[in-house]
This record gives sequence, structure tokens and C-alpha cells, in this order.
Amino acid sequence: MTANKPILEALGLQRASENSIIPVILCGGSGSRLWPVSRKDMAKQHVPLFGATSPFQRTLARLDGAQFGTPIVISAAASRFMIAEQAAASGTEVEIALEPQGRDTLAAVTLATCLAARRNPAATVLVLPSDHLIGDVDAFQASVAEAARLAEDGRIVMLGVNPTQPSPGFGYIARGEQVAANAHVVARFVEKPDEASAAELVREGWLWNAGMFCFRAAAGLREIEQHAPEALAAVRRAIEEASVDLGALVLGASFAAAPKISFDHAVMEHTSRAAVVSTDFDWSDIGDWKSVWQRSPRDDHGVAREGRVHARDVSNCYLRSDGRLLCALGVDGLAVVDTADAILVAPIERSHEIKALVNELEADGVAEACTSARVHRPWGWYQTTDLGDRFRVKRILVKPGKKLSLQRHHHRAEHWVVVRGTAEVTRDDEVLILRENESVYLPLGCTHRLANPGKIPVEIIEVQTGTYLEEDDIVRIADDFGRI
Amino acid sequence: MTANKPILEALGLQRASENSIIPVILCGGSGSRLWPVSRKDMAKQHVPLFGATSPFQRTLARLDGAQFGTPIVISAAASRFMIAEQAAASGTEVEIALEPQGRDTLAAVTLATCLAARRNPAATVLVLPSDHLIGDVDAFQASVAEAARLAEDGRIVMLGVNPTQPSPGFGYIARGEQVAANAHVVARFVEKPDEASAAELVREGWLWNAGMFCFRAAAGLREIEQHAPEALAAVRRAIEEASVDLGALVLGASFAAAPKISFDHAVMEHTSRAAVVSTDFDWSDIGDWKSVWQRSPRDDHGVAREGRVHARDVSNCYLRSDGRLLCALGVDGLAVVDTADAILVAPIERSHEIKALVNELEADGVAEACTSARVHRPWGWYQTTDLGDRFRVKRILVKPGKKLSLQRHHHRAEHWVVVRGTAEVTRDDEVLILRENESVYLPLGCTHRLANPGKIPVEIIEVQTGTYLEEDDIVRIADDFGRI
Repeated sequence: MTANKPILEALGLQRASENSIIPVILCGGSGSRLWPVSRKDMAKQHVPLFGATSPFQRTLARLDGAQFGTPIVISAAASRFMIAEQAAASGTEVEIALEPQGRDTLAAVTLATCLAARRNPAATVLVLPSDHLIGDVDAFQASVAEAARLAEDGRIVMLGVNPTQPSPGFGYIARGEQVAANAHVVARFVEKPDEASAAELVREGWLWNAGMFCFRAAAGLREIEQHAPEALAAVRRAIEEASVDLGALVLGASFAAAPKISFDHAVMEHTSRAAVVSTDFDWSDIGDWKSVWQRSPRDDHGVAREGRVHARDVSNCYLRSDGRLLCALGVDGLAVVDTADAILVAPIERSHEIKALVNELEADGVAEACTSARVHRPWGWYQTTDLGDRFRVKRILVKPGKKLSLQRHHHRAEHWVVVRGTAEVTRDDEVLILRENESVYLPLGCTHRLANPGKIPVEIIEVQTGTYLEEDDIVRIADDFGRI
Repeated sequence: MTANKPILEALGLQRASENSIIPVILCGGSGSRLWPVSRKDMAKQHVPLFGATSPFQRTLARLDGAQFGTPIVISAAASRFMIAEQAAASGTEVEIALEPQGRDTLAAVTLATCLAARRNPAATVLVLPSDHLIGDVDAFQASVAEAARLAEDGRIVMLGVNPTQPSPGFGYIARGEQVAANAHVVARFVEKPDEASAAELVREGWLWNAGMFCFRAAAGLREIEQHAPEALAAVRRAIEEASVDLGALVLGASFAAAPKISFDHAVMEHTSRAAVVSTDFDWSDIGDWKSVWQRSPRDDHGVAREGRVHARDVSNCYLRSDGRLLCALGVDGLAVVDTADAILVAPIERSHEIKALVNELEADGVAEACTSARVHRPWGWYQTTDLGDRFRVKRILVKPGKKLSLQRHHHRAEHWVVVRGTAEVTRDDEVLILRENESVYLPLGCTHRLANPGKIPVEIIEVQTGTYLEEDDIVRIADDFGRI
């Protein structure tokens, strides 16, 4: 593990002004309800959903402005390289803190508040989910500014969303005494009411709890200390035990001692300082394909399309293809989602059951339940494109300046053909420079390494031949990413 | 074009005994109603539908017995190599006659009758569609034997199928005077009645016309001469003009002068010698996905599966995947068919509309309407498995003893990696032998050829790099298949 300057700064060296807002982006959760596009190794917030950018990238884009400091992203290890890659692609610097295990939002918010307080206890913390969509960025920033003003008085401020339908899946907030133009004291919370109760709450003007919080770091710590002291203690110990690995802060084992509970239940329902800003923007938690369909542009027949789609006499469908030609005829109300290795067909209205379907697949040991065809690594990605009896063909992309581990295989030989960029290939004692259209043979047992010394991505086609062609036939001799 | 012994024999040298039955298999038609599995380049009769064998191969398998001579297959040029390949895979010798254009069944039956008559005018001709399914081979052969006995008297005998439902799409036969245990004179024909009339015909005991005919060659010629003399004249001229190309008889241009009409309309409805054998076997014309579903093994919920399929709360569906994981949740009555490059989702009950959908795709210039991902050639096949900005990856299979053309490209270089078998590669003046796991580079502009001198198929992975990577960048210098 190597030291990394931004993270060390986050641990106490970086400073924030009193007026700056430190965004905290919660990036846990796998979103199996958007399977097969989202998987365990490709969480919902990282999937390009409406065009080429992901919800996580849209969340970053909403934080454009001098009032915002460098965002802190709280995540699990599985998503770390995806976070770094998507943040870099967005041109945004982020600090990444990795939870050893998911402990719900109390632990995550506590961690973020501690890290922000080290920059400046007077700074304002803005907690944001990474997998929500907001239509109007100006309206969002206006609500944040109002929340930040309220936070100056030590309030713990939530952003409340005007319900568009009586959804039983959400938390609801009742407004009490008005404290500013669009702000009220929080009078009461109701979590996941039944359908009838939800309809009543909507009629009575309750707001949705969108999981967005705003408070001064010192005030947040005070409330957490008062209402969840064991969480604060566990997180503080985990920060003391933390190490820095490949540009991310890895929390220590004590993190496990934090109780697994939401920040809402543990703190918001008990504090006397809760306030809510009534927002005025389009909002969606894109919880399943139904909400993706609702947020997508649709034709006169209610059909939303992504990719190569042909529809004949089709209505109220979400049709998505990642490459193949998807043809639908005479169907209504279906979600059809095609990816490189799996297809889903289900009624849009039963989208919420997809999670259970994925659980079934996982129990059956079906790899596609959790693993995407394209496997992301710190150095880039690879994808199997053809598989035969004794051979496998992969496409491999190496990011500029990155290299794979120095490695050896017991059961396979490999041919590499460079199709883009310039690769540096180590083969036993040789180092070769391969340009586009050049190739190299790596006999079984040879020590080899692929690197990209250039300024543009390298892409190669790898043809493996041998009797055993799985990922675990690898002996790592040296690695930039600590995987020996 | 080179001479080929079996075809020359079919042109007059081969003899058949009086008692032998010469099967004629009509192999035209593209079957776009089974799209995306069947396409213009992959007709319905050649698609593996229930397991690994195709309807055409099942048709050949039903002709096992000393009473049957070498089958004559009437087809269009597009299917010739597929016919040869599937017949060879079935271990069956066939003679192939290629129509310059499809002219409906009168011309095809006339052609087959002329070819059979050259073997022996007293031989019995048995005309069979190639894309039907028959459950009970013994019952089929018993009906054929009965039809052949009736044919001895100069009758033109049809095989009539007992209807299982009132289908408006079929032709119906009314039985007249009984002439043998299961045989009657044909009293009347009705073609494609409306739904109500079809139900009435079924109640009255009419039979389906399954397009299977049996007659002595000389008797057939007599009837055709009487009722369709212009067809006979055109076909006879086309045979005189015929050439032999790569083992198939290619009819001459005069074939176009044959009227485009069915054998039923032109001959059967007019002859006084029509008889029908009432058959007693399961029969299906697998006209669309509905009939495939009806003929497939189904679970208690009516779900038929082919390939990797996971279904949760699904009923009455046909779910087919050629490789990917297909997941269906909460749907009823759907056909979902996935192939390497296209997916179809449609209600089973609307299967008959798929033809119209494919016509739309074709009008839009969508390649997948007509062309399969795997492209069959006389020497084997190829399939694109990955495609990037300036590269394309293909898998290529070369059959034992075959070779591709000697060729050159203006815009691309190629890397070949052998992953199965032993290849002989010509590169400019060199000839190289490449074993499994060996590779060769073919620079832009070089003259090259791939051949399989061995006894097992050769498979290679081809990586093309260049600015233009379409099939038409090819200069053929020499070719075994006359494509220079």
C-alpha cells in the first residue's frame, strides 16, 4: 500500500473554508433491480442509463460551482475502480473512502462527517445518494443553497421531494412550523407506508424523503454523538486504523462495530434539529426498470427505446439493446433488456420482482447474476468475445500509463494482436514495443506483461489456446495493484 | 464449371428399377416466419429446430430403406451449400438441381419428374416438402407404400393429413369413391378457406393437403403435358441448357418461361386421375413459431425451452436462446427467440405476422432481416465475433479438404491464429503449415489463401485491421468455386 496525497489531506491536511459545501456521495448498493444491465460488479449508479453518462456522473455534474469542495465518495471495494474511472472521465477529482463492509447509511454518513470535519468543522456537509436522477440542476442548487443557509443555525436539513404518486416504497416527511420561505421543521416521519396510507400522506401534503441531508460538520457530529455514540466511536477507530491503497482510504476493521441502521432511523427521527427544504425539481430514484421507463423519452404509444430497436404495433414498453437488433411485435407493457450475455423479458409493472429473479439465478450459481461480460480492472477492462472448445478470444483495453501484472499461465498460450494504440510487452527477458496491427506470441509458461506507455488507450485482441482457460490460471509475479 | 458424375447420371445415365421410389425434396422458400433463426440465407428447412437436426435432415432420414433411390433436391442457389453440408452430415447422397428463380411448385415438380424419367420412366416419383415434421416414420413409410401401389395404375396420388384444428391457411381435400383400404378418389379441393368454412370442412372429414405427391414418372409427365404443356416445354428447354457447377445441376434461362403456379392448381385440380391416401401420422408444416411451440416438449405451464433459459412465473411461452442467458419473468403466451445478432419478442398467437415484420426490416435495409451472423460458404463458414472502429474479429471454419480463394485486400491486414486443426497458408510465394496455436501475419496487399489439407475441420481466429473492413474489399485471383 502506498501513500496518496489527496487522501492524506482528507485525513486532516486539506482545509475547507467555512462557506464551502463538502459533497458526500453514497456509492454503495448493487441495484440488482436493474439487472441485467446492473450487476454486483456494475452497480446501478455506474450504468449509462439515459445516453452515455451514469447516474453517478450526473450526480457529480450537479456539483459544478465554486461553493462545492472536492466530493468524498463512500463506497465498497467492488466499485472503487469504476468510481475512479467515471470520475476521471467526467474530469472531476474525488476522494474515495472504502467501507470494509456495507453498514447502512448511519455508518456511511458518520464516516463522511468525520472526514469533512477534519477539513473544517465549520464546513457544510451535503449527503447525496449516487443513483438518483434530478431533472433541473438550477433548482437543485437553489434548494441546496437554502439548506446550507438553514444549516448555519446548527439544523440537520433534509431535502424533501413533492410526491408524484403514492409510492409505498418511500419514506414520508410531515412539515411542521415554517422556518424559511421553502423550509419547515420536520414534524414526523413515516417509513414505507402501505398503499392506502401512502395515498393519504400524499393528499395531506407530506414530502418524500430523498436521502439528501445538509448540515455543518460539527453539528452533524454533535447529533451523531448524542443519538448514536457507538457508531461514532466505531467509525473514529476505523479511521485511525485506516490505510491508503491505490488512491483510496480503506477503513479499518472496527468499522464492523458500527450498528447497521439508517441515518434516518438512528438520528433524524430523534433529533430536535431536523428541518426540511421543500424542493421543486423532478426527482427519481430509478429503483427499477419501471422508473427508468417513466423517465425515458417515449413515443406516442408509450414506447421507450435504447439502442437498435424495431417495434411493430407495440405500446407502453421499455426496449433496450446494447448491440443486437431487438424486434418487438404486438406486445404491451413489457421491459425487454438485452446485454452482451443476458436478456430480460418482464412486464414493466412487475419490475420490482426482478431482484427476486436475480436471487434465484445467484442461488443456482449462474455467473451472469453477479458478473458482467465486461470485467473492469484498475488498469482498464476485458471482455470475452468468443469461446470454443480449446480457445477463448478476449478484447482487452489498457488505460494510458497503466500495466497489467507480470504473470505466467500453466495451461494456456496467448496471441496478442494490437488493434489500437501502442503497447509495451514484456516476454521473459525481452521488452517489445507493438504498434497497431502488430502481434506477439506468448508461449505457455512464459513470464509476460502488457503495458500502455502511451497517451491513448491500448486495445488488443487476445487469443488463448489451451485445455484450461479460466481466470484462475494465473501466477502473478509483480503487480501495480497489490494483487500478488 | 466442372463435370460431376452423379449429376450427369441424373441427366440420363443413372438407371432406376421399376419398383424404386425416387424421392424429390422441394427445398425452396426462405421461411421468414421463423425469423430470426431462419433468414433468406438460412431457410427454415435448414434450421436445427428440435435438437441438433434440421427439418431437411429429418426429411432425408425418413427415406431410409432399399425402396428409395438417391433423392433429387430442387432448390435455389442460395441454399446449395447448406443442402450439400447437411446431406453430408446426415451421411446421405443427394442430387441437387438449382432453379435460376423460384417458379412455384408446378415448375419444381415438372423438373423433378423429367429428371426421374431419365433414370426410368417407370420409376415412382415421391414429391416431399423439406420443411415439414412427421412424428411416426413407420406410418409415413406405410402411407408411401400404399401411395406407390396406387400409382402403379397411373394415378396421381396425394398424401392427405387428418386435420387437428380448423386452420384457414391450408388446402383441403374431399374424399370421393374408395379405391383401397386407406385410399379414395379425390372429389374436390378447397384452398385456404375462411375460419368458419375451415371448421365446417374439418367436421365433414376433409383432409389437409400436405403437398406430398406420388406417381409414376411417365404418368406424371402425361398429366403435366395435358394440363400444363408450356411448363413442360420450358423445363425441358431449361434442362437442355443446363450446366453442372460444383456438383449441382444448374437449370438454364428458359426455366423463367414456366408459369408461376402451384402443381395443385395447375395439375391436381384438373386431372381425372387424382387419388388421396389418408395418412395416420403426426404432421406439422412448422409454418411459424406457434407450430414450433406446439411441437416442442413443454412443462406443466406450457413453457417450451431451447438453450439457456430461466423462467419465473411464466406460462405458455416459447423461449429460445442460441447462447446467451434468457430470463423471462411473469409473462404469458410469448415467443422470445434470441440469436447471435437479433432477438424477437412477440405473442405466440401473432407468430404469423412476423413475416410482415421481416418485410419492414428488409425495406429499411436492415441486414439482419436476410443475412445470418454465421455466413455459410462452400468451404465452411465465418462469423464476426467482435467489431471495433478499425478492426474486426472473425471465427472461420474450413472443412477438411477445402480451401478459400487465393485473394488480396486493398484496405486491410489480417492476423490468423489457428485454434483447431492444421491449416495450409499460402502467403505470396510461401506455403506455410500452421498447427493449433500457431499464427501468421498477412500484410495489406499480400496474396494469400487458407486451406485445410487435413481430415478434421480447421478453425482460425482472424483479426482484421484497417480503415475499411467489409466483405467487398477482396480481389479473387483463383477459386475452387468459380467466384473469380
